[in-house]
Amino acid sequence: MEILEGIRTRKSIRRYTGKIGSEEIDTLLRAGFAAPSAHNKRPWEFLVIRDEKIIDDICKIHKYARFLKDAGTGILVLGDSDKAFNRDFLIQDCSAALQNILLAAHGMDLGATWCGVYGGGDEIYNGFVDYFRLPANIIPVGLIVVGKKEIREMTERNRYDEDKIHFDRW
Amino acid sequence: MEILEGIRTRKSIRRYTGKIGSEEIDTLLRAGFAAPSAHNKRPWEFLVIRDEKIIDDICKIHKYARFLKDAGTGILVLGDSDKAFNRDFLIQDCSAALQNILLAAHGMDLGATWCGVYGGGDEIYNGFVDYFRLPANIIPVGLIVVGKKEIREMTERNRYDEDKIHFDRW
Repeated sequence: MEILEGIRTRKSIRRYTGKIGSEEIDTLLRAGFAAPSAHNKRPWEFLVIRDEKIIDDICKIHKYARFLKDAGTGILVLGDSDKAFNRDFLIQDCSAALQNILLAAHGMDLGATWCGVYGGGDEIYNGFVDYFRLPANIIPVGLIVVGKKEIREMTERNRYDEDKIHFDRW
Repeated sequence: MEILEGIRTRKSIRRYTGKIGSEEIDTLLRAGFAAPSAHNKRPWEFLVIRDEKIIDDICKIHKYARFLKDAGTGILVLGDSDKAFNRDFLIQDCSAALQNILLAAHGMDLGATWCGVYGGGDEIYNGFVDYFRLPANIIPVGLIVVGKKEIREMTERNRYDEDKIHFDRW
């Protein structure tokens, strides 16, 4: 898939037809690792969730990620605050990695959705921290749910909004 | 350019050979608009910086973005906190838009660098807020510097780090 086309036609997929394999997971992780990072700190960590019991539990913690059960694979992107330049850049670095994974999935004709964790409210955020017993320096930022999807024609939604474009001055 | 190859070979470019045109800017903005957004709030705004005097001033405000002078074009991505679900998602939504623009630039064989603004310290952050007289609800997140570059063979840097991959448990 051509990169500009991929960027424009990507959309969140919540219906899945099957589970991806370990090679596909590896490709997605490599996309995450290729993200830019402020001051090159690369504070990201990746937690691949495949175990059915754990997936069941996550679906209870994150009510907006219940389709993880059908997708069969989650990639939780976390940031290490001991490594990041600061918390703001940790979130931005991890977001760039999340977006890379999301686009890579689309480029592989897979379906994926970015489910917010950091900023998703105490129930979700603390739910992940407690469930995985994360150390205080490990911040879960977002969960990519990914799986096989029905291949349909890709259409570009027009979200272009001239009112949001400014030139030289606010 | 193929999307997976583009994700893997993108890197920050700080040396430029010329300025991009309005069609290229339009393509980059469309990539920004195609980002995912938590609860579909799409809080982003884009400020295209092309004026030479303004570029000179920005180079004084953001010392890590001085190559903007050679690139000739900056795209400042800002978030509207009145539209965003919350501040954390505002940063993540804008980061996804920034990453889309960065990858789109690479896909067009342009050079680009994401310069941090939110989290870049008071001098930079307040510098942008004051300079553009931004209303309190408009949060500058990051600046994409973009221009023409010398085309060289793309190489993938190996940033893969097995120690950062976890399966099912932290």
